[in-house]
Amino acid sequence: MIATVEPFHAISIGRLAYALAEQGRDVIHMEYGQPSTGAPAAALAAAHAALDSDPGGYWESTGLKARIARHYAEAYGVDVAEEQVILTCGASPAFVLALSCLFAPGARVAVARPGYVAYRNTLKALYLEPMEMPCGAAERYQVTAAALDALDPPPHGLILASPANPTGTVIAPAELAAIAAVCARKGIAVISDEIYHGLTYGPAAQSMLQRLPGALVVNSFSKYFSMAGWRLGWLVVPPALVEAARARMGNLFLTPPVLAQHAGLVAFDCRDELEGHLAHYARNRELLLAALPRLGLQRIAPPDGAFYIWADIGHLTNDSLGFCRRLLEDTGVATAPGVDFDPVDGHRFIRLSFAVSTPEIEDAIERLVPWFAARREAVGAA
Amino acid sequence: MIATVEPFHAISIGRLAYALAEQGRDVIHMEYGQPSTGAPAAALAAAHAALDSDPGGYWESTGLKARIARHYAEAYGVDVAEEQVILTCGASPAFVLALSCLFAPGARVAVARPGYVAYRNTLKALYLEPMEMPCGAAERYQVTAAALDALDPPPHGLILASPANPTGTVIAPAELAAIAAVCARKGIAVISDEIYHGLTYGPAAQSMLQRLPGALVVNSFSKYFSMAGWRLGWLVVPPALVEAARARMGNLFLTPPVLAQHAGLVAFDCRDELEGHLAHYARNRELLLAALPRLGLQRIAPPDGAFYIWADIGHLTNDSLGFCRRLLEDTGVATAPGVDFDPVDGHRFIRLSFAVSTPEIEDAIERLVPWFAARREAVGAA
Repeated sequence: MIATVEPFHAISIGRLAYALAEQGRDVIHMEYGQPSTGAPAAALAAAHAALDSDPGGYWESTGLKARIARHYAEAYGVDVAEEQVILTCGASPAFVLALSCLFAPGARVAVARPGYVAYRNTLKALYLEPMEMPCGAAERYQVTAAALDALDPPPHGLILASPANPTGTVIAPAELAAIAAVCARKGIAVISDEIYHGLTYGPAAQSMLQRLPGALVVNSFSKYFSMAGWRLGWLVVPPALVEAARARMGNLFLTPPVLAQHAGLVAFDCRDELEGHLAHYARNRELLLAALPRLGLQRIAPPDGAFYIWADIGHLTNDSLGFCRRLLEDTGVATAPGVDFDPVDGHRFIRLSFAVSTPEIEDAIERLVPWFAARREAVGAA
Repeated sequence: MIATVEPFHAISIGRLAYALAEQGRDVIHMEYGQPSTGAPAAALAAAHAALDSDPGGYWESTGLKARIARHYAEAYGVDVAEEQVILTCGASPAFVLALSCLFAPGARVAVARPGYVAYRNTLKALYLEPMEMPCGAAERYQVTAAALDALDPPPHGLILASPANPTGTVIAPAELAAIAAVCARKGIAVISDEIYHGLTYGPAAQSMLQRLPGALVVNSFSKYFSMAGWRLGWLVVPPALVEAARARMGNLFLTPPVLAQHAGLVAFDCRDELEGHLAHYARNRELLLAALPRLGLQRIAPPDGAFYIWADIGHLTNDSLGFCRRLLEDTGVATAPGVDFDPVDGHRFIRLSFAVSTPEIEDAIERLVPWFAARREAVGAA
């Protein structure tokens, strides 16, 4: 039987948001996980230059692969050889590639619930079996070594994300080491989604490669580097999987976009501009955290990184998709419904992205405060 | 068991070619199927403009989807609605998407042998079963309705390519209609690879949609539009598969590159420049065809379209990969070994791409003539 793959519900909210904007409504897009800033200026300049000089054929930048390999030495102190880096058209196909290298149909892969919707759906599309591990506030919405160790039967694989989407929570170094130890002991293959690395508001997140050299690591230029629409990501594979990954890349995807590779190489040297974006997210995060009591939102995941607030709205609704639609129609503020990220408990959560501009955050708060107050009153909540 | 996916052997020839070029050798790249011309001037200008104005977030151009839908009315006289067009990061992921929408592991999918290497390998990576149909000179190296009808058990699906890679042969309209009739009668799902449409040297190729409205059609900006490295393609799906295809696109791949979408929309209006490329390929093709007797190459596939000559070199070798390496090392002319396209008989074929410049074709011929003469002498061939 052909696998059923669920759509992103956030996309339906996004469509409604754009439709409202076309009707003249002033919409604030907090439904998508993408930076509102564009690519760094020097990266844009590199793309302009490449447009004038590069013939634009099938191409894989060995310079960029070497630069990414060097990044692992500089940022994490781990050795990654250039050939271990597979350039991809964004993080999404990097997951397809990683899963295809590691697993045959029927394999069980553990994921945190809540978690990024594409983990579950891509697993299902590839006829792998998601083992969703319920992770609540007590576990900071993350997989723990103890919970992983208790899974019976043990999974063949594990997808980790730290910082995570939708919660922004980071796995502490000791816990990451404990998870790595369970995986090493039980032969569980690990795919570590490190797409939000660089976007943390406390200690920097550790790479799983620091704990488990055989892990596969997914990353991209879409978040920290603010280049979502350029479609450039990468997968780090252990040496034993290089040939399998290269063969799959060549057949399933061919090569990544040329302009993005030129721009991405330059983006690595735009730290000042990119750290400026981080400071801006940090400011937005502070504003939003300070406003949450006024919204009556008291149960949120610890927003250690990324640019999300994962908020429990169970006192207001048990239909997060309807809630997001109503919120958007009434206030023009678009948010993502929890059901995308958690098919069991997500009906009582929303995800707010604060990767918009600071004036938009301030504006959104002013719109949300009276709306949430009215909502609390309507349902008789405190 | 994890599927084994073969690498492209042409890539190893390409690497050797680049290594020789770095040593100062004058290399002519006839190993890859990509235009040597860049994107149309107006498309480049559109990309420059987009770099200065588009924020570069996740984006799907409805204007481009509508333009592609209109192309089906204009070029083929068939109705395609905008929502039936799924924009992808090139034709390769469009295949993954199509296969994922249509088939579950174990399904049998018929493909011509010789055929594009990624068909076989992508099928294997997705745990589908390639049913390779041997297609020789008598069948113009294409699947026939009779051969398809005779398959026992019948396949669940069929991948067609017209013009084909590596042969360039086009399926005649009557045969295409007969194939469609077999597929309709037996419920065989069809994926039609139309990536070389627009590049024909006789009558234009028909779209499978003219014969079978339920077919899935893959195409891209990489060949006719000369934008290989931009990584933009599309998949046309019947209305009943739109939701399944959209959900898979969102989860497995997310969105196509922003700059390529801006440039691609403009490229549709650059017919004069693009028809100029076609005239240039036609000239290269004439030169190469005229030279083949001097090379002693008498058995070739009818090069109706694309930019390839598929030549039988069985009188010279039974090791096409070794032959291509030796040819490259001796002359600097890189070609693709037949084993990529035909695991059974490809050891006695090579593919020459004539999508290089005309001076390069002339130069290549002068290098090849004495080399082939020496080779014939060495093996005692006529």
